[in-house]
Amino acid sequence: MTHAQETRVLEALDGFMIELPSWGFADTGTRFGKFYQAAAASTLEEKLADAGEVHRLTAACPSVAVHVLWDFTAGEDPTSTSAVAAKYGVRIGAINPNVFQDQVYKLGSFCSPDPSARKMALDHTLESIEIGRAVGSTLLSMWLADGTNYPGQDNIVRRKRDLEAAFKTIHDAMPPGMTLLVEYKPFEPGFYHTDIADWGMAYVLARHAGPHARVLVDTGHHLPNANIEHIVAYLLDEGMLGGFHFNDKKYADDDLELGTIDPYAVFRIFNVIAQHEFDTGVRPEIAYMVDQSHNLKPKIEAMLQTVDAAQTLFAKAQLVDRKALAEHQASGDIVMAERCLVEAYQTDVRPLLAEWRRAKGVPTDPIQAHRESGYAERAARDRSAARAARGEKQGGSYA
Amino acid sequence: MTHAQETRVLEALDGFMIELPSWGFADTGTRFGKFYQAAAASTLEEKLADAGEVHRLTAACPSVAVHVLWDFTAGEDPTSTSAVAAKYGVRIGAINPNVFQDQVYKLGSFCSPDPSARKMALDHTLESIEIGRAVGSTLLSMWLADGTNYPGQDNIVRRKRDLEAAFKTIHDAMPPGMTLLVEYKPFEPGFYHTDIADWGMAYVLARHAGPHARVLVDTGHHLPNANIEHIVAYLLDEGMLGGFHFNDKKYADDDLELGTIDPYAVFRIFNVIAQHEFDTGVRPEIAYMVDQSHNLKPKIEAMLQTVDAAQTLFAKAQLVDRKALAEHQASGDIVMAERCLVEAYQTDVRPLLAEWRRAKGVPTDPIQAHRESGYAERAARDRSAARAARGEKQGGSYA
Amino acid sequence: MTHAQETRVLEALDGFMIELPSWGFADTGTRFGKFYQAAAASTLEEKLADAGEVHRLTAACPSVAVHVLWDFTAGEDPTSTSAVAAKYGVRIGAINPNVFQDQVYKLGSFCSPDPSARKMALDHTLESIEIGRAVGSTLLSMWLADGTNYPGQDNIVRRKRDLEAAFKTIHDAMPPGMTLLVEYKPFEPGFYHTDIADWGMAYVLARHAGPHARVLVDTGHHLPNANIEHIVAYLLDEGMLGGFHFNDKKYADDDLELGTIDPYAVFRIFNVIAQHEFDTGVRPEIAYMVDQSHNLKPKIEAMLQTVDAAQTLFAKAQLVDRKALAEHQASGDIVMAERCLVEAYQTDVRPLLAEWRRAKGVPTDPIQAHRESGYAERAARDRSAARAARGEKQGGSYA
Amino acid sequence: MTHAQETRVLEALDGFMIELPSWGFADTGTRFGKFYQAAAASTLEEKLADAGEVHRLTAACPSVAVHVLWDFTAGEDPTSTSAVAAKYGVRIGAINPNVFQDQVYKLGSFCSPDPSARKMALDHTLESIEIGRAVGSTLLSMWLADGTNYPGQDNIVRRKRDLEAAFKTIHDAMPPGMTLLVEYKPFEPGFYHTDIADWGMAYVLARHAGPHARVLVDTGHHLPNANIEHIVAYLLDEGMLGGFHFNDKKYADDDLELGTIDPYAVFRIFNVIAQHEFDTGVRPEIAYMVDQSHNLKPKIEAMLQTVDAAQTLFAKAQLVDRKALAEHQASGDIVMAERCLVEAYQTDVRPLLAEWRRAKGVPTDPIQAHRESGYAERAARDRSAARAARGEKQGGSYA
Repeated sequence: MTHAQETRVLEALDGFMIELPSWGFADTGTRFGKFYQAAAASTLEEKLADAGEVHRLTAACPSVAVHVLWDFTAGEDPTSTSAVAAKYGVRIGAINPNVFQDQVYKLGSFCSPDPSARKMALDHTLESIEIGRAVGSTLLSMWLADGTNYPGQDNIVRRKRDLEAAFKTIHDAMPPGMTLLVEYKPFEPGFYHTDIADWGMAYVLARHAGPHARVLVDTGHHLPNANIEHIVAYLLDEGMLGGFHFNDKKYADDDLELGTIDPYAVFRIFNVIAQHEFDTGVRPEIAYMVDQSHNLKPKIEAMLQTVDAAQTLFAKAQLVDRKALAEHQASGDIVMAERCLVEAYQTDVRPLLAEWRRAKGVPTDPIQAHRESGYAERAARDRSAARAARGEKQGGSYA
Repeated sequence: MTHAQETRVLEALDGFMIELPSWGFADTGTRFGKFYQAAAASTLEEKLADAGEVHRLTAACPSVAVHVLWDFTAGEDPTSTSAVAAKYGVRIGAINPNVFQDQVYKLGSFCSPDPSARKMALDHTLESIEIGRAVGSTLLSMWLADGTNYPGQDNIVRRKRDLEAAFKTIHDAMPPGMTLLVEYKPFEPGFYHTDIADWGMAYVLARHAGPHARVLVDTGHHLPNANIEHIVAYLLDEGMLGGFHFNDKKYADDDLELGTIDPYAVFRIFNVIAQHEFDTGVRPEIAYMVDQSHNLKPKIEAMLQTVDAAQTLFAKAQLVDRKALAEHQASGDIVMAERCLVEAYQTDVRPLLAEWRRAKGVPTDPIQAHRESGYAERAARDRSAARAARGEKQGGSYA
Repeated sequence: MTHAQETRVLEALDGFMIELPSWGFADTGTRFGKFYQAAAASTLEEKLADAGEVHRLTAACPSVAVHVLWDFTAGEDPTSTSAVAAKYGVRIGAINPNVFQDQVYKLGSFCSPDPSARKMALDHTLESIEIGRAVGSTLLSMWLADGTNYPGQDNIVRRKRDLEAAFKTIHDAMPPGMTLLVEYKPFEPGFYHTDIADWGMAYVLARHAGPHARVLVDTGHHLPNANIEHIVAYLLDEGMLGGFHFNDKKYADDDLELGTIDPYAVFRIFNVIAQHEFDTGVRPEIAYMVDQSHNLKPKIEAMLQTVDAAQTLFAKAQLVDRKALAEHQASGDIVMAERCLVEAYQTDVRPLLAEWRRAKGVPTDPIQAHRESGYAERAARDRSAARAARGEKQGGSYA
Repeated sequence: MTHAQETRVLEALDGFMIELPSWGFADTGTRFGKFYQAAAASTLEEKLADAGEVHRLTAACPSVAVHVLWDFTAGEDPTSTSAVAAKYGVRIGAINPNVFQDQVYKLGSFCSPDPSARKMALDHTLESIEIGRAVGSTLLSMWLADGTNYPGQDNIVRRKRDLEAAFKTIHDAMPPGMTLLVEYKPFEPGFYHTDIADWGMAYVLARHAGPHARVLVDTGHHLPNANIEHIVAYLLDEGMLGGFHFNDKKYADDDLELGTIDPYAVFRIFNVIAQHEFDTGVRPEIAYMVDQSHNLKPKIEAMLQTVDAAQTLFAKAQLVDRKALAEHQASGDIVMAERCLVEAYQTDVRPLLAEWRRAKGVPTDPIQAHRESGYAERAARDRSAARAARGEKQGGSYA
């Protein structure tokens, strides 16, 4: 590796910050049940403390995405949440309205045939915008569970039109500097059709909403065999890529940690982003966020793994020799063009990542450092006691 | 349709009984939550009452599969459950041990690296066999949630061997006349590997277990694009088909009602069964069972839909002109061979099914009759009151 | 079925014309080889004669899509092709440039890194437009084989931009009244990325090309589990649906006859089109075209099967009680809403289709009539003789 | 990396020999056509020369799999082929009968409804066994294209039984020391059902055939999302794994070079093999063979890439700390167990592979050495001239 390459990687890592999801520190499971962890976070403060711990160990996660329903108390000043975040060394990032958990959303939120469901979803989202404004968030991140389970259950186009109208209203209610992120997903919880099923639908809806809407790519939200980096390249070139939800999958929306199943695919995503920067001279503004559901691993460790994998694969993507690549591509030398990617991917960047960590004053092995810190044992003890004091059984809602 | 065809269909319907799952009348949902129904069953008696209602309306569902953990009380005489079933005009069918819900099963049941989990799974299953013996059940139906979420998480072969040993013990503990059904599933809740992932693994395990083990085909438990009828034909010819769990899917294990997504595929399954009977002169012993998770539709209506769809598609499969089919196949006349299936499938058998229902003294439109009966309204009122009296909130466990 | 329903179906069938592909009468195969048919068409005249035979037997296929490379002779007056078509009772429909067969297209056509390949593709397409103008065609149908086989092989965004520029030039060169149809496909022959991989990319490219570009949906060109009718509904509502290539698939782009694998899915596509007409009062202009690769069945019979299946499923879609459906959807009665579709689908429309055929003066069983006509035997004899006279071996190019 | 690890890797590489396919040096393509390479091999001698070149550059490919139809001349002494192989420093490996190319196989080979097709397939295979005996081959490798395109086209069970009988006959005709390898594939060229569709069917057929039959795993022959290493582990534990056909895929049977799409998945396959050796103390006998269809890359370079990727990923699999892994697995420490695999995978083994190559006296960069040798230019010139002299056009059959 040349010195220039090392410098490029280190500088790129400086600009590669990854947002953590507050809900990623709570117990999660599948429809068959949850396996509980004594150290899992139950309260907002516990979640932000855990996020702070991850940032303390990585220097790469300064912000936390929040779920309005789970992380704010109706009627309370939302900046109290910001204050808790600050206490733990992080800040509030993307605001995620929740328009799927209430019983009113049985048939959908913005797409429901029930006008009261549509209204409730809109009111909640407008309120979420106000929360975002209050806490200085620049991202309104919309994932809808809207969909149907059976052919004929509802009128797909009626649903599309109601959704377009809602997004337009939401878009226009946002303060300056806020971006609406539109997430797509092919299925689950809807098993026949999902109202925003693929990037094309998200793109169309974002275009209809207005100039401050972008598409959010959750890496696990694609049909089998989809070429995700192709979609990312398309969205980048269209100026429509807003951000990512990082996770990995083997089958469906498995929500495993990034790179645990197909790390080369993740590398290829980072490669098209680096290529875009190389080709245009502009570093695109992308919100990198984690969204995973590590049901079995300790919460903080799983988050540290994802951050480590993301940094590793992001660093490798910086190593591609883009001038050589361009020449091989232009001359149709497929073998050598491909090899530019393979050689970067095969390079062991762990020493370089360790160097970056030392420079930031964080441990070179964050998981080991976390284990040695006793944080998890303390959390397990204290949180179990706190739950007991509150008379709570572990479990409950998805968050 | 000739008179001979009509007779064949009516007689075939007489022999086509479909077992209902007790858990199919309770509230179900996805990992994102449940939408509750006031009329959903909470207690064993309510579940059996609902199953009885379906049988009363269809004359096609005389038995009910039960989940040991949910439908029996430890220490109580299991025949008390049989008595409740009899009260509602049904009987107990397949016994389903539950080896996935307890926290001990976090890393698996029979395959867990934790010997105490393996022992608990075995003890529970042996106890389930005793329950089955007591209530006169002839089917022990095993679905395992065992699997792993990450490459390297566990030793796949160690797990296989422990599972083989457990199935051998279970097999040998069964009373005469009982059959062990081994179910397979490619993923969920395991997201990297599932210990019994496909029919081949279930076949191998059943063979190792002993002569009274068979493979259970859940129609929703296959990778994308799998040809299920091919698998069914293979298992039939090998004498290894034990039964079905009926449901339909578009994406993953969606657990929708049978035939709601791809009715022609269901017809083709029934076709290979009818062909087997035609070719061998023997009607195979197959346990037809429903296993679905209708989260949005009223429970009893969804079950009636599945029974109706199964009967309709089963009846169509009886209409295939198998002599003509054999001739066209032998002569390589693809167009006319395929047409034998298409013509049977296109035939509207609803009048014939209505005739069968009239002969059995049940309504020709079971859903309409159910709606007119007021059953659902009474159940909603009474069960809400009963839950309130018990101080229960609706929701809770998957069942 | 009410008289009004019957009338609606018969009228809808009048407006449901299906274009045949000239290449659908020639020998086709897989990469493993072709199985030859003596009656397969080799020459343009033979192809148009076969298309004429299908139209004579169905009264539903008045036009024939042509491949410029295979069906026109460079330097000759293209209207000579029209004259041959007229001789057999059909007319020329969509013009399909061929930009994938020449060796120059090894790395792509409009997307190739080789400027001479890009130029050749553009020149050929502009020439195709002139042919279309000369023969009075209103459709320029573009399927590209462009893609790459390996990560890094080429710059995806460079390719996208060259393609956008080419489509803009092509669009602007079209005479008034001509529409550019942009087809998408996820893979094959490209095995890593395909430049127009999904409907979203086709939509974006069509939007960039100009107001006379639309998306062409080939029913076999989707990733596993895709909800095609959802895409169709989206495109309809966006005013961007241009037409269809009809075929069916189980695994990949299998190019089987329409409805041979999943007829209910085809019905659902026709259902969203009928729903669009009901909701807007406007019948959308859609080019319905066949594109299949029936390698084993006799060519004309396979085409007749597809026409029959399309008409049958199209007719069923007209039977949905859309007022009742709208009411059930609005009230959230999922069971009854779904039932509106199921009941229409279960209705046996074969008698009605026979009635329509009698009214048109065509046989009620086109395949049977074709077999009785001796057409295939004559074609086999005459075409074998003609090939021999020309000194040709059967086989050769894909067409 | 410890010295012990290095030694283990180097020794493992010594035992990791990869067989090349003679057909992998000829022009190949898709159903849409072939792009020709002047240096592609047309004759047996050219193919064996190319294979010899790969072995000369890698010291890892001492044998060549041959296709009976393409690589032997009826009536000639088969040992003449061995002699040509020896001339180029390689020997004949697996014998592949061809029972799919002749027109008689339109409806299948061993499964055809046409007895003459079945007989021809059997005769050809028995003759292939004699060829294998004559040239000292120990492997009879059977891939069938048998399948159907339409539901109802043929009787699936009749086909299964005819196939079982044929495999029994073939098995019993093999000389001592020969193994029958049964390959499976889910689809293509059959688009509805394939007679040996998955590993389970291959396993059942191999068991029925007799003790010298094993299953052949082609890494590209699986449904989407299949966990291949799980299948490999199962077959190993059952003593039924015979060998591999190496290639990679993104969508279907794309036949790309190994590891070009998902290298981590390949690593995991090698990992279960290394684990089996660790757990049992026995190195399993596995025939590692390449089977790919590199349509665009230069033939020899693509083969060198696959060998390089296979060695790289195989070497990484030897680095897993299996004692630590077993401890973490036993204690349920998922994070650390997974990490054992990830750390081995992340290690850059290129220096170690270079060391192994130097020790074998072969170039450390085989592709570069090949380019510098001028082999490809000479082959292009000489082979073009030879084709011209023979009056051949480039192209023709798949091989």
